[in-house]
Amino acid sequence: SSATAPIRATLFPGDGIGPEIAESVKQVFRTAEVPIEWEEHYVGDQIDPRTQSFLTWESLESVRKNGVGLKGPMATPIGKGHRSLNLTLRKELNLYANVRPCYSLPGYKTRYDNVNLITIRENTEGEYSGLEHQVVRGVVESLKIITRQASLRVAEYAFHYAKTHGRERVSAIHKANIMQKTDGLFLKCCREVAEKYPEITYEEVVIDNCCMMLVKNPALFDVLVMPNLYGDIISDLCAGLIGGLGLTPSCNIGEGGIALAEAVHGSAPDIAGKNLANPTALLLSAVTMLRHLNLHDKADRIQNAILSTISEGKYRTADLGGSSTTTDFTKAICDHL
Amino acid sequence: SSATAPIRATLFPGDGIGPEIAESVKQVFRTAEVPIEWEEHYVGDQIDPRTQSFLTWESLESVRKNGVGLKGPMATPIGKGHRSLNLTLRKELNLYANVRPCYSLPGYKTRYDNVNLITIRENTEGEYSGLEHQVVRGVVESLKIITRQASLRVAEYAFHYAKTHGRERVSAIHKANIMQKTDGLFLKCCREVAEKYPEITYEEVVIDNCCMMLVKNPALFDVLVMPNLYGDIISDLCAGLIGGLGLTPSCNIGEGGIALAEAVHGSAPDIAGKNLANPTALLLSAVTMLRHLNLHDKADRIQNAILSTISEGKYRTADLGGSSTTTDFTKAICDHL
Ligand SMILES: CC(C)[C@H](C(=O)O)[C@@H](O)C(=O)O
Ligand SMILES: CC(C)[C@H](C(=O)O)[C@@H](O)C(=O)O
Repeated sequence: SSATAPIRATLFPGDGIGPEIAESVKQVFRTAEVPIEWEEHYVGDQIDPRTQSFLTWESLESVRKNGVGLKGPMATPIGKGHRSLNLTLRKELNLYANVRPCYSLPGYKTRYDNVNLITIRENTEGEYSGLEHQVVRGVVESLKIITRQASLRVAEYAFHYAKTHGRERVSAIHKANIMQKTDGLFLKCCREVAEKYPEITYEEVVIDNCCMMLVKNPALFDVLVMPNLYGDIISDLCAGLIGGLGLTPSCNIGEGGIALAEAVHGSAPDIAGKNLANPTALLLSAVTMLRHLNLHDKADRIQNAILSTISEGKYRTADLGGSSTTTDFTKAICDHL
Repeated sequence: SSATAPIRATLFPGDGIGPEIAESVKQVFRTAEVPIEWEEHYVGDQIDPRTQSFLTWESLESVRKNGVGLKGPMATPIGKGHRSLNLTLRKELNLYANVRPCYSLPGYKTRYDNVNLITIRENTEGEYSGLEHQVVRGVVESLKIITRQASLRVAEYAFHYAKTHGRERVSAIHKANIMQKTDGLFLKCCREVAEKYPEITYEEVVIDNCCMMLVKNPALFDVLVMPNLYGDIISDLCAGLIGGLGLTPSCNIGEGGIALAEAVHGSAPDIAGKNLANPTALLLSAVTMLRHLNLHDKADRIQNAILSTISEGKYRTADLGGSSTTTDFTKAICDHL
């Protein structure tokens, strides 16, 4: 076991299947002797006026203080007068880039082989501004906001990521032929940053064409960077290519180097508590957290154990066509470690 | 040959490969003895002040008068001070619904079998409002406009289409969890129309989830209706599932029953004039025009001839892995008639 002081990381187990898959991460981390001490926080049962949401101020402070966190699925409580949990986290922690690696899992067959993409999504503005109003009865408007600051920041993150992860190409996805000012500004910022990275190939692809090319031949792409809504759409499309959100990790990067990894699938209340959930997305998200902490050895070991377990096919949860429980699948991963 | 007076239809051969593939349509229509007389119009070489674009007022008047038209690919001329040709047509002719049938071509293998979808796109507003401005340096906004009138109109078209084409389900695609007012109004209108069609199953699907489901299992969908940008994205994604824009027809429906069918692929200047272009998208678009005119016998005969030719595989253009010229492929279709 590690002699250095453990790293504290915030854990939001989340709702539904969240606690079960979080337990799986804790067990795998223990077995791999990852020097992390979890600080667990739960979604509150009333609105915290400081966050205007069911997320408590203390839980956000925990991520700010620790700098790293892992989040399970959260079911936004029903009712009015509060902000969505996901959006609260993004806004309050200024999580400006959402990074989703998406690669074919060896041994798990879909229609696509050898998918190996990274989508990097601007996570704070664009179509998610929340600014909407009714002009007159029957006529409503939403504002899409693009700023130079946020565009440069996410573009910088994308190129830096490409460079430090041995990637060769960054594609900026846009619809600047229609939204010339907003998407035009986004592209302008990407071009400015691209000039500082002459070793990375830079290209611009219109979103409709990008989606067509992705389903025809995803190998055409490497790192994709884009405004908020396009990232929402394309990251889910890419997840679909390799089997769905149950298999794809996600990590949010905030100002000051904060990293909040998360499973982006739902809380699956129908199978909650039944030991049936697939913890893969949360496990692989936890791996991205380890990489963010430069714990690459641990990250590699755990990632290999997960991929080998799925690849061998003996232990798979029901969503992957198997009949293993969450705990059996987790044990199989631990046995690989 | 038909004894009744021929129907006049406007033809925009368009640029690049446009004239070659338009010639293919004319030949197939002649062979099938379709009672249509083409009225050809070309993109002008200067801006017509009445349209603010290179499209002449006369050409738009021709579509208005005839009520039906067919359009090849148009390369928007470079320069400032004029509107895009596609957008001019949509605005001036009030082409409120863009209908794209997307089905697997028998014998032409992609990763997907049995795709059979119809995307119906609102074509006049949403993210295509053209309203954008700079708030301060480095901060720009685009307005997305959703109106009750346009949403009801396209929803009505979608349900009517479903009913009259033996379709069972309409899915409204949206992001109302984020854009509650704009996409919320769109959904509200779809729900209102859905109530008038109890025999059609109605569902609402968030766009990111829709894209994931489409690439995992497109058979989950039937007719999809959605705001402008989502339609732009999803129709191209669907085209990718079955092989690309070279194979998918498109038809725009305007107020007063106007139908302007179009090939949505590019003008492919690199192969223009070389007798290499694939006329399938324009031919299948011409078939949708015939259906709009209730010439279903002719439409069926021509569609079958096209599909049989592709399916047999002896005559295919280079984009489909064959080595036929445009004229040989066209002749093969005519031989099937
Ligand atoms: C749940 C929803 C608000 C969220 C989004 O739209 O960003 C989700 O789709 C995601 O991608 O994290
Ligand atoms: C060329 C472009 C303006 C157009 C659009 O965005 O609508 C095209 O992508 C389409 O789908 O017809």
